[in-house]
Amino acid sequence: MDRDRILLTPGPLTTTLRTKLAMLRDWGSWDADFNAVTARVRQSLLKIVHGEDTHVVVPLQGSGTFSVEAAVATVVPRDGHVLVADNGAYCKRAAKLTTLMGRRVTVLPFDEAAAVSAEAIDTKLAEDASITHVVLIHCETGAGVLNPLQAVADVCQRRGKGLIVDAMSSFAALPIDAREVRFDALIAASGKCLEGVPGMGFVFLRKAILDDCAGRSQSLAMDLHDQYVYMEKTGQWRFTPPTHVVVALAEAIAQFEAEGGQPARLARYTANYRTLIDGMGRMGFMPFLDPAIQAPIIVTFHAPGDARYDFKAFYNAAKAHGFILYPGKLTQIETFRVGCIGAIGPVEMQQAVHAVELALQDLGIASGEPAI
Amino acid sequence: MDRDRILLTPGPLTTTLRTKLAMLRDWGSWDADFNAVTARVRQSLLKIVHGEDTHVVVPLQGSGTFSVEAAVATVVPRDGHVLVADNGAYCKRAAKLTTLMGRRVTVLPFDEAAAVSAEAIDTKLAEDASITHVVLIHCETGAGVLNPLQAVADVCQRRGKGLIVDAMSSFAALPIDAREVRFDALIAASGKCLEGVPGMGFVFLRKAILDDCAGRSQSLAMDLHDQYVYMEKTGQWRFTPPTHVVVALAEAIAQFEAEGGQPARLARYTANYRTLIDGMGRMGFMPFLDPAIQAPIIVTFHAPGDARYDFKAFYNAAKAHGFILYPGKLTQIETFRVGCIGAIGPVEMQQAVHAVELALQDLGIASGEPAI
Repeated sequence: MDRDRILLTPGPLTTTLRTKLAMLRDWGSWDADFNAVTARVRQSLLKIVHGEDTHVVVPLQGSGTFSVEAAVATVVPRDGHVLVADNGAYCKRAAKLTTLMGRRVTVLPFDEAAAVSAEAIDTKLAEDASITHVVLIHCETGAGVLNPLQAVADVCQRRGKGLIVDAMSSFAALPIDAREVRFDALIAASGKCLEGVPGMGFVFLRKAILDDCAGRSQSLAMDLHDQYVYMEKTGQWRFTPPTHVVVALAEAIAQFEAEGGQPARLARYTANYRTLIDGMGRMGFMPFLDPAIQAPIIVTFHAPGDARYDFKAFYNAAKAHGFILYPGKLTQIETFRVGCIGAIGPVEMQQAVHAVELALQDLGIASGEPAI
Repeated sequence: MDRDRILLTPGPLTTTLRTKLAMLRDWGSWDADFNAVTARVRQSLLKIVHGEDTHVVVPLQGSGTFSVEAAVATVVPRDGHVLVADNGAYCKRAAKLTTLMGRRVTVLPFDEAAAVSAEAIDTKLAEDASITHVVLIHCETGAGVLNPLQAVADVCQRRGKGLIVDAMSSFAALPIDAREVRFDALIAASGKCLEGVPGMGFVFLRKAILDDCAGRSQSLAMDLHDQYVYMEKTGQWRFTPPTHVVVALAEAIAQFEAEGGQPARLARYTANYRTLIDGMGRMGFMPFLDPAIQAPIIVTFHAPGDARYDFKAFYNAAKAHGFILYPGKLTQIETFRVGCIGAIGPVEMQQAVHAVELALQDLGIASGEPAI
């Protein structure tokens, strides 16, 4: 049996066959036909955040983290000072890459089981006038928390600070409206809620700050200003684009638009999430987060308290029943994660719940109830 | 008519259907099955350069240039001094990215119509003892020159200098034997002579220098030492890998091995090159380079002298006849380039020559003879 497993992960995720079929062709990266695909993708992306008037979008080769690093390197001046609102693993990664590139960083820690607080950020900004930029992870997939983007953006705007948003796992699923939320940079990637394949990211940059970004990046490959200027002039990427990934993204976006765009995608993911939560709850599993701050993107569950539980065995059993789960990323508590995103609907989530049930049986575990 | 054009470019290039079909599946980037693919690719790559005893190989997301930048950032200490042997556009790019990241750079210029001289590099190294590393582009696709890798490596070894080789467009086609050629880093990418799709590069690092590389990179995403350590520990990539690109590369490598490895690939590309040169010669086209330094990878031709010639019109005409050519990259002289690489053989090159003939006819040009 070689049937594909369904990926319940935060990306790469399950994509449609139509999206993958778009990769059965080779494109010249210099050719007008390919440039037209790039242009179409960029226009569609801008439309998703209603950023046509205020922002540009710059695609970049590599994983989403490459785009996060590029955004910081391009937007933050070398003598800038970045405040990272930290409630999870991806926040810590953003702080690390910012420190490594030599920018000053202050980390404002929050509980990983809670959303970051716009008020606490406001207080910190009031205390330390040297801070120039705030980095916020919109949906922190370490635990699955949805952070208050609008409130943080309002604080930054009021205090005249730049805002860099890692919207990797929220973009295209959760509403983000550039007309209402002011950000200097917002980052996402092909292989997340747009349901493309992984291999490229993209960064929305506010037009008003664009000119000042020239020459800030110490990395040639990650200089988004340079990438932008070249792309505007030639229609091409500066360096070889992942052509197959780009055309797959174009195809994925066409399906996204046909589905009804962000509201329809959120509705489907929310239905996936409810099906998951209800089904797992019936087996005794307990989600880690308060539902009030849980994004319908990825859910962290406490590991079952049963002594026979072992993540690897559980993972392999669920995989044998057709589904790929994801390990937890919390430091203190044993957990696992289940993604609600990708080209799947409630029917697949019902099957996923059933696969988890069978996996528990395989391990001889009667209930998903945690030890606590 | 929607038949695919054949790409006569330095990559992305035409790949086999079998390679592209490997992308019709989604893989969990954390899953053991995918880790096995990564491990297999890494083993195969090491074998190609006979580097099992002396080197490790570290794959990296992004285009080949990302890997070049990562190699320099990881291998050259922050107070290092890099000598770039410059005979073309890719040399200049390497010098630029090295300068940008704050490493000291000296450029040793050569004619773009000539190979770099190992003797001149030797002299320069003798003159300036502060130089720590030499950067060499093996096949400079700006014009198509093959640079003397063995001789430059010997000079570097004798003088105790590190050598970083950009083998982007030569790897897997031209012989490179790590048992005979000493290099600290050698860089190539998926979408070149291995005939995979673009989206990742890889860097061979000499084991003897590996430990010293820790903490040198100011970029998190491009830190090859960190990527290596994590991959050895977990079998996984640090950040989301371009899963479809990786499995396509694995499939492309299987075909490379079945074809007979590097010698067979060189033989096919050489046959492509001869067919191209002979056919173009019959139409009066003149190659830019002396055949003695011409790699059978990409050929630069002088533009026809006929006043009706215009690259864009010529390109579009050749495209209409089924072939994608490539613009020239020389600063002084008008040229165009034709690649000999990709999943094509002499039959396709005969057709390509015929397409060029028809394109000339379409433009009303009687001969490919240059003006000079």
